[in-house]
Amino acid sequence: MNELSSRILCRLTAADDFLSGEDLSVELGVTRSAVWKHVDLLRKEGYQIEAVTGRGYRLTGLTGRPVEAEVAPFLTGGRFGRKLSYHEATLSTNILAKALAAEGAPEGSVVVADCQSGGRGRMGRTWVSPPGVNLYFSLILRPKLPSFRVPQLTLLVAAAIHRALSALVPEIEVKIKWPNDLLLNGRKVCGVLCEMQSEPDLAHFVVVGIGLNVNQQDVPPELQGRATSLFLESNRLFSRPELLATVLNHLEPLYDAWLGEEDLSFILPYLEEHSLLHQKEVAIDQLNRTVRGRVSGIGRSGELKLEQEDGQTCLISSGEAHLRTALS
Amino acid sequence: MNELSSRILCRLTAADDFLSGEDLSVELGVTRSAVWKHVDLLRKEGYQIEAVTGRGYRLTGLTGRPVEAEVAPFLTGGRFGRKLSYHEATLSTNILAKALAAEGAPEGSVVVADCQSGGRGRMGRTWVSPPGVNLYFSLILRPKLPSFRVPQLTLLVAAAIHRALSALVPEIEVKIKWPNDLLLNGRKVCGVLCEMQSEPDLAHFVVVGIGLNVNQQDVPPELQGRATSLFLESNRLFSRPELLATVLNHLEPLYDAWLGEEDLSFILPYLEEHSLLHQKEVAIDQLNRTVRGRVSGIGRSGELKLEQEDGQTCLISSGEAHLRTALS
Repeated sequence: MNELSSRILCRLTAADDFLSGEDLSVELGVTRSAVWKHVDLLRKEGYQIEAVTGRGYRLTGLTGRPVEAEVAPFLTGGRFGRKLSYHEATLSTNILAKALAAEGAPEGSVVVADCQSGGRGRMGRTWVSPPGVNLYFSLILRPKLPSFRVPQLTLLVAAAIHRALSALVPEIEVKIKWPNDLLLNGRKVCGVLCEMQSEPDLAHFVVVGIGLNVNQQDVPPELQGRATSLFLESNRLFSRPELLATVLNHLEPLYDAWLGEEDLSFILPYLEEHSLLHQKEVAIDQLNRTVRGRVSGIGRSGELKLEQEDGQTCLISSGEAHLRTALS
Repeated sequence: MNELSSRILCRLTAADDFLSGEDLSVELGVTRSAVWKHVDLLRKEGYQIEAVTGRGYRLTGLTGRPVEAEVAPFLTGGRFGRKLSYHEATLSTNILAKALAAEGAPEGSVVVADCQSGGRGRMGRTWVSPPGVNLYFSLILRPKLPSFRVPQLTLLVAAAIHRALSALVPEIEVKIKWPNDLLLNGRKVCGVLCEMQSEPDLAHFVVVGIGLNVNQQDVPPELQGRATSLFLESNRLFSRPELLATVLNHLEPLYDAWLGEEDLSFILPYLEEHSLLHQKEVAIDQLNRTVRGRVSGIGRSGELKLEQEDGQTCLISSGEAHLRTALS
C-alpha cells in the first residue's frame, strides 16, 4: 500500500462518520482527484468505502490485513506499532527491520509481512511462513543499556506474548518454553528471535522478530505434532490486526519497566509459573555439548537454573532445551 | 586502487625478479596493453616500477600505504588480512566492514582507510583520523559462539596489539587501559571498538575496529596530554603496512586459541601484568552511575574486579575507567 493510501485509510478508520473529500485533500496536501484515485486503489485492495455526494467517504469494511490503518485503532501504547510498514511478501521481517534500524528508524517501529520467503528462527532454522493466515513481524528497540542485558529481552517478550495469548484464549493454558517459544497443548504456536547490533557498553539497536501462527488450518507434514496455530487449538479465527496490537500493548509497559530494572527479577515469578520446563528433567543442546539436569528455576538474567546429577546447580545462558524421556 | 592494479601490484611485490608482461597478461586474463595501462596507473599512484624490454616489469619502490599488496608480504597467518580493501577516505571503517559482513564477507577480511571523516570510539565518541599518518582498520570475525562471549574479544585484541607494539617499540612500556585502549607514557596511542550483530545463542559477525596513531606528528589541542603516537613517543617513523600486518599476525593465533577456550583465563596473567589500572584506585562511569574502588584484577570474562570501600568485590562489565586522584 502506498503512503497516501495508507494515510487516507488511517483517517477513515479513525473517523466516526463521513469525511469530506475536500477536508482530506486539504489535510493531506493533495488534490481531491488524488484522494479519489487513492480511495479507488483502496477499494481494489478490498476495503469497502462508501462515497456519498455532499458528505464524502466512509469506511464500511476492512480486509483484516495487519496494515497500519487496521492495527492503529487497537493500539493503547504511545510508541510500539505507531510506525508500521506492511509488506505482502519479504525474505524476512528481521532482515528488513535490521536495515531500517541501521538507517535510524525510531524505537517502536514495526515491520510486518503477510508472508516470508526466508523466515528464520534461532540458529538459522526455518520458520514456515505461509501467506494470509499468520503474523510475522519485527519490532525495533533502542534500549540505552550495555549489550549484556539484551539477551534478557527474549524472555521478557515471551512473557508479554504469554499475557496477550492468555487474554485471547483464556480456555487454553499457554506455556513458555525457555527461552523463546510459546506452546499450546505442547505444540509451538509462537517463536521469538531477538537480534542486536551492539558494542560491549551499548546496544545500538535490537530487532525483536515474532512469528505467531494465528489462523493457519494445516500444519506441514514435517511439523506434525510439534507446531500448531491459535485456530487449530481453539477452533476460532482471530483478527490479525487486533492480535498484533494486543502483543505490542502488553510488551510496551513491560519493556519500559525492564529498562528501569537491573534484570528480570521483577518478572521471574511469572516466567517460572508459566515455564514448560519448570521442575522437569531436560537436555540442553549447546553449540558443542549437551548438558542434562533438572530445571530448578530461571536466573535473574534469564538463564535456566539446572540442577545437575552431581548436585551442583549451574546457570545455562543459551541452547536448545528438550524434555527428557526415559530414552534421552 | 582498482582490482586489476591491485592484482598486478600483488604479483610484483611477491616477485624476486622481473615479471614479463606476457606472463602477467596470461595469468590475469587480460591483454598486454591492459597490463601496461595499469602499470602506468600504479606509477601515477607513486609506485616505482622499472620496465625493461625483453625482461618485463620490476617493482623498485613502494608508497608505504596500507594496501593489500604492501601488507601481504608481512602477513604470517592464513586468514587475517588476506582479503583487504583499502579506501583513501571513508566515514568509518567499522561502518564499511559491518556492511561487508552483512553481505557475507569471510572471516579475516580487513577494511583499511587512509582517513576517516566520522571515525568513532566507544559510546559514539569521535576518533580523530587525519590522512597519511595513522592506521584505521576493521577486521571481520565470525566466531561460532554465543553472544555473551563476544565482549571478551575487546581485551583479547588489546593483548594482541600490546604484543605487537611491545615488539616494535621495546624501549617503551605499553599499558592496556581496561577495556579497550593502549597507552604509551600514560597517553592513548590506540583504541579498539568491537561491534557485533548477534542473536543470544550465536554471534552472526563481529567487527573489530582499531585506530592506531602511528606517524602523527601533532596532537590536536583538545587532546594535548591525553593522546600520542608511536612517532611522538619513540621519535621513529613506522611502516604502516608492516605495523598492520604485525597486529594481525599477533591477533590471529590468539583468536584461534580463544575460540577453543571457555573464557579469557588463558590470557589473564598477561592482561593483569600490563594493565594500567591494576591495584589502582579508580572511578568507573557507567551509563547511569559511577562506581569507585580499588582494582584487584580482571575476571574470566574480562570484567574489572573492583574492591569497594565496604570490602565487597564486584565485577564491572562495562564503563569508562578513570584513575582517581585526591580530588576525584
